Amino acid sequence: MTKSVVERRIMWGDLDSLGIVFYPRYYEWLDASGHLFFESIGLDLGTLWNQRQIQFGLIETGCQYASPGRYHQSIRIVTQLDSLSRKTLVLKSVFEDVADDRLMVTGTEKRICMNVSDPQRIRATEIPDDIRLVLERALAPAKH
Amino acid sequence: MTKSVVERRIMWGDLDSLGIVFYPRYYEWLDASGHLFFESIGLDLGTLWNQRQIQFGLIETGCQYASPGRYHQSIRIVTQLDSLSRKTLVLKSVFEDVADDRLMVTGTEKRICMNVSDPQRIRATEIPDDIRLVLERALAPAKH
Amino acid sequence: MTKSVVERRIMWGDLDSLGIVFYPRYYEWLDASGHLFFESIGLDLGTLWNQRQIQFGLIETGCQYASPGRYHQSIRIVTQLDSLSRKTLVLKSVFEDVADDRLMVTGTEKRICMNVSDPQRIRATEIPDDIRLVLERALAPAKH
Amino acid sequence: MTKSVVERRIMWGDLDSLGIVFYPRYYEWLDASGHLFFESIGLDLGTLWNQRQIQFGLIETGCQYASPGRYHQSIRIVTQLDSLSRKTLVLKSVFEDVADDRLMVTGTEKRICMNVSDPQRIRATEIPDDIRLVLERALAPAKH
Repeated sequence: MTKSVVERRIMWGDLDSLGIVFYPRYYEWLDASGHLFFESIGLDLGTLWNQRQIQFGLIETGCQYASPGRYHQSIRIVTQLDSLSRKTLVLKSVFEDVADDRLMVTGTEKRICMNVSDPQRIRATEIPDDIRLVLERALAPAKH
Repeated sequence: MTKSVVERRIMWGDLDSLGIVFYPRYYEWLDASGHLFFESIGLDLGTLWNQRQIQFGLIETGCQYASPGRYHQSIRIVTQLDSLSRKTLVLKSVFEDVADDRLMVTGTEKRICMNVSDPQRIRATEIPDDIRLVLERALAPAKH
Repeated sequence: MTKSVVERRIMWGDLDSLGIVFYPRYYEWLDASGHLFFESIGLDLGTLWNQRQIQFGLIETGCQYASPGRYHQSIRIVTQLDSLSRKTLVLKSVFEDVADDRLMVTGTEKRICMNVSDPQRIRATEIPDDIRLVLERALAPAKH
Repeated sequence: MTKSVVERRIMWGDLDSLGIVFYPRYYEWLDASGHLFFESIGLDLGTLWNQRQIQFGLIETGCQYASPGRYHQSIRIVTQLDSLSRKTLVLKSVFEDVADDRLMVTGTEKRICMNVSDPQRIRATEIPDDIRLVLERALAPAKH
């Protein structure tokens, strides 16, 4: 199973008045991690958009919060493809404290394949075969 | 059942490159709507925090996206208390297009009552009786 | 002189760990107020973009902070056109506390007229005559 | 002269409908870079706040935009101390395209030393001598 990993630091502007991360920030990082996952398996979403008028749009997202993030803490976000259907896929990301591997947040994004050739009439479409092949490889259990 | 309603306009800075709302913005509005809901039933979260060292922190959030939001569109966010337990509660918000009442997004926040007297050791606590009473009234079905 | 006015409340997610507004939020509101100013004088930036491939892009922005914004405070943002040249214009916004008219922030945006027909090659252009006329009227001193 | 350098990638959520960075994002990165600069010279703002009730608050910020940032572009932010007075300092950051060193944005933050022991009555104060010494060293011209 392909996993993409990104590390980032929690900055002052990510915190709320309690000194812990304001939760919509996790969704910004979740979205960014999803884009980096696609890039890591050779599917650059910018290229898909410009050359094939395809995007993977969101239909459902969610996060569970296990422990709060604080000022200048380093976090690791590990993203993988959790499931795949004809039109949709689910990405799952785990946010961990780099210092002690403690679980901070679990997040999921359910994305649907969209034809965006007319931005005023975005519509769902089946995942094209060549893209599906790449995704299936990313989903397959790793062979050691 | 008490509902709080807030309207806002989608601004340029809320949009992504497809010209539709970047989804973490919905969570910013979901959080804001939750705070306004508490205020509407007489529980100002700022006051609870300053005078009683209590906050309702997030343990789980989620959104489902039905139709995309666009530039300068007016949206209505209707928030209500969906369930209540000893330590937790669930708020549910519905985002609608003001022009035609079309459903745009459904969002939920599961919040837990926290003692924040020591910001370094935030811990879950039972909802105090007087606050529970206020919440139960907000949950009770409206009598017509 | 045309002024557009918008009021908004400071929400939990706008605050930093000191319980005051995290300053990049003021720029989000400054940008939004600029768009509303254009709309108020009949120049909808969405329409300009879609129908005439023109945008007013930023070349310089700045803010001065007089007093901090806090939780659920209502603020008033008053925006007006401060100067106008062949290709550029300057918008000035004043942020005030609704409760006591106290000055909170002064912000300016210097914008340049851009031809965005090719998003990969955005370039500066003279403000078209019909748009200049509208802007000059917005700049002219009010006659009492 | 001490310079702190940080690199980051422009993500989908940083872009506006033109596919270029929404400018308030630059201020989020400017603020973050300021905090990292302080940390790089041994002045952790979190520690200053918790142990000495001191923060460097903003009184003025500004940015000039030279060329737009785009999807997944890598940018380098170089931050240094530009000037220092009894109560205030100015940080200057330059944003460059990592690929070709092209200038993208120049940003400045004028910060004032604040006593934040009472968050409800934040007030300006002289920079303490030990902190001033550290800042003066960071300001001194580099000796090659």
